[in-house]
Amino acid sequence: MTCTPPQLPEHPALTNDTSMLTRRFGKEVTNYFSGSRLNRYSFLRSDAAFLGKAATSPHARFMALDDLRPLVVDGKRLALLSYGEVEGVLGPSCAVRGSDEERVRAFDSSKVASEVQVVFLGTAAGAGHDHDDDVVWESSEHGVVRGRPYFAIDVSRARGGGETEGDLVREAWVKSQGEKNMWVALDTRSLTLHSEHAAMFAQARSVIDWNTRNRFCAGCGRANLSVEAGYKRVCPPTDLKDAAAPSDADAPVPVVLPDCPTRHGVSNTCFPRTDPTVIAAVVSSDGERMLLGRQSRWPPHWHSNLAGFLEPGESVEEAVRREVWEEAGVRVGRVVLHSTQPWPYPSSLMIGAVAEALPGDGETIHLNDGELESATWFTVDEVRTALAQTPGAMTEPAPKEYIEGDLRVPPPQAIANRLMTAVVEGYLTGNAKI
Amino acid sequence: MTCTPPQLPEHPALTNDTSMLTRRFGKEVTNYFSGSRLNRYSFLRSDAAFLGKAATSPHARFMALDDLRPLVVDGKRLALLSYGEVEGVLGPSCAVRGSDEERVRAFDSSKVASEVQVVFLGTAAGAGHDHDDDVVWESSEHGVVRGRPYFAIDVSRARGGGETEGDLVREAWVKSQGEKNMWVALDTRSLTLHSEHAAMFAQARSVIDWNTRNRFCAGCGRANLSVEAGYKRVCPPTDLKDAAAPSDADAPVPVVLPDCPTRHGVSNTCFPRTDPTVIAAVVSSDGERMLLGRQSRWPPHWHSNLAGFLEPGESVEEAVRREVWEEAGVRVGRVVLHSTQPWPYPSSLMIGAVAEALPGDGETIHLNDGELESATWFTVDEVRTALAQTPGAMTEPAPKEYIEGDLRVPPPQAIANRLMTAVVEGYLTGNAKI
Repeated sequence: MTCTPPQLPEHPALTNDTSMLTRRFGKEVTNYFSGSRLNRYSFLRSDAAFLGKAATSPHARFMALDDLRPLVVDGKRLALLSYGEVEGVLGPSCAVRGSDEERVRAFDSSKVASEVQVVFLGTAAGAGHDHDDDVVWESSEHGVVRGRPYFAIDVSRARGGGETEGDLVREAWVKSQGEKNMWVALDTRSLTLHSEHAAMFAQARSVIDWNTRNRFCAGCGRANLSVEAGYKRVCPPTDLKDAAAPSDADAPVPVVLPDCPTRHGVSNTCFPRTDPTVIAAVVSSDGERMLLGRQSRWPPHWHSNLAGFLEPGESVEEAVRREVWEEAGVRVGRVVLHSTQPWPYPSSLMIGAVAEALPGDGETIHLNDGELESATWFTVDEVRTALAQTPGAMTEPAPKEYIEGDLRVPPPQAIANRLMTAVVEGYLTGNAKI
Repeated sequence: MTCTPPQLPEHPALTNDTSMLTRRFGKEVTNYFSGSRLNRYSFLRSDAAFLGKAATSPHARFMALDDLRPLVVDGKRLALLSYGEVEGVLGPSCAVRGSDEERVRAFDSSKVASEVQVVFLGTAAGAGHDHDDDVVWESSEHGVVRGRPYFAIDVSRARGGGETEGDLVREAWVKSQGEKNMWVALDTRSLTLHSEHAAMFAQARSVIDWNTRNRFCAGCGRANLSVEAGYKRVCPPTDLKDAAAPSDADAPVPVVLPDCPTRHGVSNTCFPRTDPTVIAAVVSSDGERMLLGRQSRWPPHWHSNLAGFLEPGESVEEAVRREVWEEAGVRVGRVVLHSTQPWPYPSSLMIGAVAEALPGDGETIHLNDGELESATWFTVDEVRTALAQTPGAMTEPAPKEYIEGDLRVPPPQAIANRLMTAVVEGYLTGNAKI
């Protein structure tokens, strides 16, 4: 978890010289799950020649997710596999074998569920861990590409005999790396990954989850196909499932499918979904208290900032006012955007704000929608003490300084912790600090 | 279009006394399509008794959308219909007739496409246009509800004889209002609606569009059902389509459908989708120029800020850096969040930022992904002149002061205009102004 100074992705588009970033505007907040050093090169996702060359090279690294859990080496680092270690689970028409045009033409709805999902994450160049990060590639249409290519692969699929693809990949890893490097799948929420790997995991988990949840076209209900290296799902116009072959020598003639609305113009359902979510540190009008809420399923004494999904037709500021009023009855005036955080459960964008309650009646708590077990005004000092006594995840025990019954708050990996910290550190005094 | 002082929704949760909002933090930017005065009361969307009572009352108002175009009175105001004027198009199991439980039990996939979509938008109370806005309701479980209830209704469906539901509603309106109030559907992008009605339209258009695009379950491909007054689509466990009736006297026995992943736990695909989109006014490191891009399909001389969809696993700041580098090759350092705007085409959340290019090589333009026709550094003075000469939409002619060949920029309804204005008005000098 890093907050200041900003840790920027170290790819060719950017810089790691943070000194020049603070000159005009002050510091930038980099929350956990952001700060990836990958250059996504999104315009190369349909460059089949590049993807094939990159994936099969000795420089390529694959992050494997088993039922959305990352495979890790020691709980802090992702197990990064070579092409040889994942080759056995890749099907004949996966994203790094053949162009999207070929894959659409060869679409067979009876076979598509057995294809292993591969996602191109991007490349890492420059200030990496070894000189392989300086590798240079030629793309088909966009000139030179720099850096070691990273992919994600979904190894959840069942094989015969109770095995999953994950077991096969694990065997290949043990064979090449030796028993002592045996790895396990990390619980998805434990937030122990090194921040750089956490950011790569956030990208991979969200994209694979989206592909998994959207195997059928929302516009017509037929099976669809993942293209553009995992970043698009299209509804193919033909299907080889019930194809007729005129004779053994002829290629089967695919069945032409009925029309689908997603084949006309741009359809947002074809692209990965990210859900904007607002979260706000609400401060009393006198600046001395903070409003925190509590869900009944949390361990005793845990509280956090109020949060909820932004709805269609709302600005962030309006969503904050609605959520805070619906959940706690408190009326919010000014809302200041603080920072944002990707949250891959399954694919949210947390938009963090600091907000000010309106004085008087505006600060009276009333649980309008019944979603919270309680909402409470804590003093800034109570929040400061709780922040100091928050060693990690909810599952971890409190430190010995903790007095039973006192407030507990989320760990620094959560943006809620960063918003509370901003307030405690004087965000509300003087000029805005963002 | 209002920017300062903040115009807050005037519902019971909030205030219209803006004086107290600027005390601590400075001004808040309210962009076009935000600033709705409706209280969404999202927790009442499954309160069938309330919805039925509210919709059928003389206080209710319905906004009608025909193929997503709002029906308007004079180009600036929505035509707001009474229950009597829309009653004829409402089917027997629409959202305001019967509970969601009953509607799920009665689900018949062969009939669901013929149901007219109704969306509960919220209520307007307090500083409204007439005393009806002070009406008080009893909800089933959440106490008193205040204000005139607003709904949206989709009247696009074809009826027999080449008519649509819209024609039927239009006839009812003419009959009750008289010929002189005849209305037409406004082109969706003309941005001429009064700001308060524009905000209601943004909500209605996005939610109806989402329902229209997602008639099939992304998890299993079967037809689904709109519930919670338009804010959720569920995959029912049974279907009356091929139901067998043991005898004429017995109720038909619905067919039990195979399992679907969306019926376990919370599935984000069941809820309306909003796509976070970043847009940035990129300023040169010396603060004297602004980077604008141009798409080949735009009229001559039009330019705007660079923008693009945020991807899974990105913070807003990272998405800005990626988009600017991919589209224009410019390397961005510090990114400051400015304001946000709902954009209902189909359902985006525009997240506006001001960003600073890195000096030297960082400012060299290179169109990496080929999406733009060109990207150009304009002086702040050129942008200032263009802002002063931007009367309205792209389709409008330039004012007579305009010199052919000079820069043209989007109208004030677009957040791009507000970001450019912020820079021109000195956003970059001194302390951050947000």
